Amino acid sequence: MPTSPESARDLSDPQYREAVVDLLGAMAYGELQAFERLAGDAPMAPDFYNRAAMAEMAVAEFAHFKMLRTRLLELGADPDVAMAPFVEAIDGFHASTAPNDWLESLVKAYVGDGIATDFYRDVAQFLDPQTRDLINEVCADLGHSKFVVDAVQYCVAEDPKVAGRLALWGRRLMGEAVAQSQRVAAQREALIDLVLGGSGPDLAAVTRMFADLTENHTARMKSLGLEA
Amino acid sequence: MPTSPESARDLSDPQYREAVVDLLGAMAYGELQAFERLAGDAPMAPDFYNRAAMAEMAVAEFAHFKMLRTRLLELGADPDVAMAPFVEAIDGFHASTAPNDWLESLVKAYVGDGIATDFYRDVAQFLDPQTRDLINEVCADLGHSKFVVDAVQYCVAEDPKVAGRLALWGRRLMGEAVAQSQRVAAQREALIDLVLGGSGPDLAAVTRMFADLTENHTARMKSLGLEA
Repeated sequence: MPTSPESARDLSDPQYREAVVDLLGAMAYGELQAFERLAGDAPMAPDFYNRAAMAEMAVAEFAHFKMLRTRLLELGADPDVAMAPFVEAIDGFHASTAPNDWLESLVKAYVGDGIATDFYRDVAQFLDPQTRDLINEVCADLGHSKFVVDAVQYCVAEDPKVAGRLALWGRRLMGEAVAQSQRVAAQREALIDLVLGGSGPDLAAVTRMFADLTENHTARMKSLGLEA
Repeated sequence: MPTSPESARDLSDPQYREAVVDLLGAMAYGELQAFERLAGDAPMAPDFYNRAAMAEMAVAEFAHFKMLRTRLLELGADPDVAMAPFVEAIDGFHASTAPNDWLESLVKAYVGDGIATDFYRDVAQFLDPQTRDLINEVCADLGHSKFVVDAVQYCVAEDPKVAGRLALWGRRLMGEAVAQSQRVAAQREALIDLVLGGSGPDLAAVTRMFADLTENHTARMKSLGLEA
């Protein structure tokens, strides 16, 4: 590929544009699914306060979905077509991590959102300013998950036995996220090139990214009072 | 009861206030459930356009829930306590009307919302101005269901055979709504007094209300291209 990473970060380059559409499509479907899953988990809440707080998180994800869809349309892309390649992997992630109870759904909401946010923020730094700003905006709105941290900390303090089970659950969430990302990576070369900053198949870059993701995941689990 | 209907329509009257809290509690739980159910039905959509449109309706219901919850708090009521008496009936309605496919979920979204809106608007006219304005605001936001009318009309035109099945479905929705309302009515005397304009057990008023509901239901089914 003769294009240097710098010149490729321009939406007038069809190949770069296509990769951005791929990325926004993946994010959009992820947000739509997050909306549906959080809304679906809400009835597991022990009271209306928590149930409404989970619904509020779902609504925030839907607002993100709409921002991403609007941008896809601005780029001349069909959002349905852009999202389609990621349905299997994202549905697969959710199917393999269906929470068994309210605590698992809380940890999933926090940890799953956190992994996705880390990943997209990491990618954003290599992108054109407009796409970068959009991704940072979508990833910034995290105020809603404070209730999760409080609720999990409270439950772990009340019943320390659950900590072990939830630590395992966190590891499973991370493992499934990695597995599904690899599945996508194997099929979407242009996207992976974009994700790695246009540096091609650079094993060091992949290693660094996973090290960052793992470190942040550990910090998040710790903030819940759990081991990673 | 020596209080005349007029003087009773005042929030400083504890009995009236309690009945209003009951009404707002029922509405709030109805909206929260509508949010969860619509979000849960969204994945049945045939494409992302419809899926997102259903999610949008769900989000609108959640906004209504928040308005009602805010008002309950302003009235010094605990929203959890206010909603609790209506959980069984509203959950019962949804359990007995779980849609089997996308078309049934569309008809339910439109017809169910319509029945509830008619009922609450009917009640609102007997209430103090503040409560009346809130209810009218909650019931006014109906723009989102236009996509339902278009989608159902389209499907019925494409495959006229579904019309019979959906007509039966509409009757079932109405029947279950009436059954669950009667269940609530049997338990919440103050609320029923409020609903009937403080006129006490007035059979004529009940009859009029049901006649109105049925007429509007028939008009709605017709707008979908269906018999009531």
